[in-house]
Amino acid sequence: MSNTYDIKLVPLAEFQRVRGAEIDKYAKLQLLADMCRANTLATVKRAGSGHLGSSLSSLDIVTLLYNLEMNTVKLGVKHPDRDIYFSSKGHDAPGFYAVLYSLGLLGEEKLINLRRLGGTHGHPDVSIPGIEANSGSLGMGISKAKGMAIAKTINGWKGNVFVMTGDGELQEGQIWESLQTAMHQKITNINVIVDYNKIQTDKPVKNIIDLGDLENKFEAFGWYVERCDGHNFAELESVFARFKMIKDRPKALIADTIKGKGISFMEGPESLKKSSGLYQWHSGAPDDESFELGYAELTEKINAQLAKLKMPSLASKTIETREKGRVKLKDVAEKVVTAYGEALVEIAKERKDIIVLDADLASDCGLRPFEYAFPDRFIENGIAEQDMVSAAGGLALQGFLPIVNSFGVFLASRANEQIYTNATERTKIIYVCHYAGVIPAGPGKSHQSLRDISLFNALPNCTIIEPCNAIETKAALEWCVIEAKENCMMRLAISPSPRTITLPDNYDFSCGKGSILKHGKDAVIIGYGPVMLNEALKAAELLEVKGFSLKVINMPWLNKTDAVWLEKAIGNCPAVYVLENHAPRGGLGDSLLNVIIASKTLRTKQFTKFAIEGYPACGTPFETLKYHKLDGDSVADRISRGGKIKPAG
Amino acid sequence: MSNTYDIKLVPLAEFQRVRGAEIDKYAKLQLLADMCRANTLATVKRAGSGHLGSSLSSLDIVTLLYNLEMNTVKLGVKHPDRDIYFSSKGHDAPGFYAVLYSLGLLGEEKLINLRRLGGTHGHPDVSIPGIEANSGSLGMGISKAKGMAIAKTINGWKGNVFVMTGDGELQEGQIWESLQTAMHQKITNINVIVDYNKIQTDKPVKNIIDLGDLENKFEAFGWYVERCDGHNFAELESVFARFKMIKDRPKALIADTIKGKGISFMEGPESLKKSSGLYQWHSGAPDDESFELGYAELTEKINAQLAKLKMPSLASKTIETREKGRVKLKDVAEKVVTAYGEALVEIAKERKDIIVLDADLASDCGLRPFEYAFPDRFIENGIAEQDMVSAAGGLALQGFLPIVNSFGVFLASRANEQIYTNATERTKIIYVCHYAGVIPAGPGKSHQSLRDISLFNALPNCTIIEPCNAIETKAALEWCVIEAKENCMMRLAISPSPRTITLPDNYDFSCGKGSILKHGKDAVIIGYGPVMLNEALKAAELLEVKGFSLKVINMPWLNKTDAVWLEKAIGNCPAVYVLENHAPRGGLGDSLLNVIIASKTLRTKQFTKFAIEGYPACGTPFETLKYHKLDGDSVADRISRGGKIKPAG
Repeated sequence: MSNTYDIKLVPLAEFQRVRGAEIDKYAKLQLLADMCRANTLATVKRAGSGHLGSSLSSLDIVTLLYNLEMNTVKLGVKHPDRDIYFSSKGHDAPGFYAVLYSLGLLGEEKLINLRRLGGTHGHPDVSIPGIEANSGSLGMGISKAKGMAIAKTINGWKGNVFVMTGDGELQEGQIWESLQTAMHQKITNINVIVDYNKIQTDKPVKNIIDLGDLENKFEAFGWYVERCDGHNFAELESVFARFKMIKDRPKALIADTIKGKGISFMEGPESLKKSSGLYQWHSGAPDDESFELGYAELTEKINAQLAKLKMPSLASKTIETREKGRVKLKDVAEKVVTAYGEALVEIAKERKDIIVLDADLASDCGLRPFEYAFPDRFIENGIAEQDMVSAAGGLALQGFLPIVNSFGVFLASRANEQIYTNATERTKIIYVCHYAGVIPAGPGKSHQSLRDISLFNALPNCTIIEPCNAIETKAALEWCVIEAKENCMMRLAISPSPRTITLPDNYDFSCGKGSILKHGKDAVIIGYGPVMLNEALKAAELLEVKGFSLKVINMPWLNKTDAVWLEKAIGNCPAVYVLENHAPRGGLGDSLLNVIIASKTLRTKQFTKFAIEGYPACGTPFETLKYHKLDGDSVADRISRGGKIKPAG
Repeated sequence: MSNTYDIKLVPLAEFQRVRGAEIDKYAKLQLLADMCRANTLATVKRAGSGHLGSSLSSLDIVTLLYNLEMNTVKLGVKHPDRDIYFSSKGHDAPGFYAVLYSLGLLGEEKLINLRRLGGTHGHPDVSIPGIEANSGSLGMGISKAKGMAIAKTINGWKGNVFVMTGDGELQEGQIWESLQTAMHQKITNINVIVDYNKIQTDKPVKNIIDLGDLENKFEAFGWYVERCDGHNFAELESVFARFKMIKDRPKALIADTIKGKGISFMEGPESLKKSSGLYQWHSGAPDDESFELGYAELTEKINAQLAKLKMPSLASKTIETREKGRVKLKDVAEKVVTAYGEALVEIAKERKDIIVLDADLASDCGLRPFEYAFPDRFIENGIAEQDMVSAAGGLALQGFLPIVNSFGVFLASRANEQIYTNATERTKIIYVCHYAGVIPAGPGKSHQSLRDISLFNALPNCTIIEPCNAIETKAALEWCVIEAKENCMMRLAISPSPRTITLPDNYDFSCGKGSILKHGKDAVIIGYGPVMLNEALKAAELLEVKGFSLKVINMPWLNKTDAVWLEKAIGNCPAVYVLENHAPRGGLGDSLLNVIIASKTLRTKQFTKFAIEGYPACGTPFETLKYHKLDGDSVADRISRGGKIKPAG
């Protein structure tokens, strides 16, 4: 057996060959879709992550839309009268990029560099021609499509707006706002397609939050609704033909699809049986063996079909040859989220008042151990963050201590007003903002949480903490549960750091006080969390070689500072750098400034924030940190120049 | 005709008399409800504002719940097995306070001091015994009730949770999230009552965003639904009796009610005919004549009923005698929102790309002139802020310049993630956060917007501006439309200031630069907006008398500062005060600190922020500013003591 494997691409010429062939139109669509499936699998494998399951479930529909239904390719992606398509869920971007490539709308370099700097984003971004809207955060698409459809009407532009939603996505309230307003506003040039593959992140929709009778729901909101097999081109074509006849209301297609369609062992719901009921192919790249198996299955199917049509076999090209079994950081390094999940189980044994709430990210948020240990105190709320947060408010009013989990970008932002209202009730709730910060950068700015500190910071009764390693995570959770008198927000990195941050032996986790990780006298850098503290330590090591002694401080308290401790910790260092894993505004730096300006000894020191300027880049951790000049090298360089360099972002 | 009028109260003893009478139970409920109506009208008149329309429409239901249906009074408002009631809309608080008073649960001093410091809040607050949840921001109630109902189930506590919603409120997406999750989570101890009075802020629901077939919608979400006349006690009683029999799903009552019920000229939809289709009694207090007319009608009806039952007439007591025709500040002083509305019409004549979006606050946001002038470019989106913001995103992607309006507390917070996603698309949208700041303080913390600057501030491409008078408002809007290259957030006070702020003659509205309103040398105070600049000027005048020369600067640019201008503007003043109409974190002060710390001349000056510490108080403008030590007197006092005093808040 070979020690390497090839990642191959179906080149554009092959798509042109098939598109030009005189064959049955549905057979052609099937071939094109399966060739896009092969490219989707290849690019996700190359990227190391990406949403395969829903790319594969929606691919037949997108292929049909662009090749048969819509005028977009013919008119061009900037023409006012074009049909507009975009995916509201956005997770299916790898599949969509494959379709754009197959049409000659996306270059090969872009396609193969999925989730890489300068390549394509993990979720859609309008900087790529053919992408009509940014998405990836769920539930916004129909509303946005409404705006586009209204614009067409006002301008007298032709064309329809097609928007694809997920099924789990229908748990978001904004969907129902938009269904209600679209009907009232008589928006008739809009077609919604629900990719009803019936599995959300990693469990069946009916087990997370059942959608009930979806056709009935859409009809109750006044929409014209059809339902068909989302993998049957003939059925799809006839549905869209009927949609054209309906001119008095918005239209929705509930498309029954199969998650992972086209690769047998990825297809739901069958594949769930082999994996304890958890779907394995939602967002990660397949291991080497699964990749080779899946790719072979796809190409065999394509070649069999080509043979049947008496056409030559597929001519793929190799874009990369890789060694097998590369070790991944995330499989070996310490992860704070794992420590959090374990600590949660431990503390919940004592504290019967703890209730854990999840919004369909239980695996990513480390909640499965709690779910299995305390099923009666675990509330799965589906992708409905606002409802989850207000329900937590009700639980807190009745004496429970709710611990509310989601990715920071969703929890802090979408449920912000609900968090505020709960906080005004003076109960105590712990909010855990997972996936905090810029890394991993592959999923892109819909997932990178860089505003969460600022979004919690103006609450008068909330303490914000980001721990840097497993020990501190456990201490932070205990502090939040046992010591805190008010609401807490814990910010947790989802990615491991290449180095486990080592805390001082005698470290006491005490409100407002951080810890010195490395002594130094020429300047001090203050950071938080495993990712940035690693870069700070790397910078210190690089500077040490050059004879510059940089002190490194871990400051997990992001909005509480003990002024006496800070003065002492900074000491005689003449320059203070704050390394944010956050936007420049509203993070730790601004919080510290309030203490620094009040201190006669501190306010005369040079003060510099290093933060994620502009929108976060999409790429590997290294690429992204480098781009923002926040990697150890760049930080060392900026400090040695006196912190004066503006980052490129 | 008398020059004065009396505000009277139906005292508790009268409620006890009626409750103890041996009369038909429905006749008794009607009497109790109408007596509560009288007290509601009296307290709203005394407060000068309050939501009469929906208090009156929901009062019969609340009266029935507390007197007949629920065990809450019997068991006590802290008993675990009690039935729990709260209003999700919260606007109907005056009516609810009247019911609590009638049951002996709320003291007279509290009742008559509606919207006053130390009295009752404009929207519900759990600090008052009997109030189960904070509300007033719409759409959260069913979710919160869910949390309470789950808590009852986990703890094995008896009792049901009753939650009242409005009808316009059903436009909020969170409602549908909660209907969906409640069914899936099998929450059976919950009863939702929709106060279906069919008029939202000031227009019929069917004209804002039609709800369609509401029963069908609730049923499509799996709920058990009944519908009845919400003013018919017998029907209500039998519905709740049937609800008790339904043990496998959550239950909803669509109660057909009449907005303003009980005062003939306030009753919708009839009263709309006399007022150009706009409902007049949603949130303001009636004028003196209407008050006397309405109060007489109510007491006559009550007395007629008492007479029929052979009971003595009502014994009301006078709580205040007032002069008629008091002049109100809001009727005479300059309002920036009026200037905004006029400027919008002017600029839209030139700029055909402007589209104005509203979320059912068109009158309060000064949008009616635009709506009437450009009906095709005005989008009424109902109470669905998230949908509105994403639709604006779609319009911007298609080349329009959307101007999005709502109260700041709703727009900046509830639609935060949608604003972020739009901003990542690098289009330009203008968000107008109305009702910015702490004044008016009567509606309470669900409406006072004190976090909006911080909620927009971490966006990399958004300029935040608060103008201080009509001239600056026009200049700000023009700058946003014509000059700005990125997104803008305009923050507008809804209340007038007792003084019109006068800008310097040669004032040039230029990004990052404010203006000096009063020269001085001993210290400088930097503020923004009409309300706080008035207090700053008042403080300067008071200090002047004492020989302390305070410079007053207007700084409308809340997140952009021209460093050279700031150094020059502060000049030799040794102390810098920032007067925030915002929470202490994330406002203008933090923004300025970033410039100040980088300036060798500025960073050594004493720096102090005066901000709204803690949650904002509810009261009159004077009471509230005084409470937070942000009125001119307190500001002068704090400055003369070197800014060292902590506010009480």
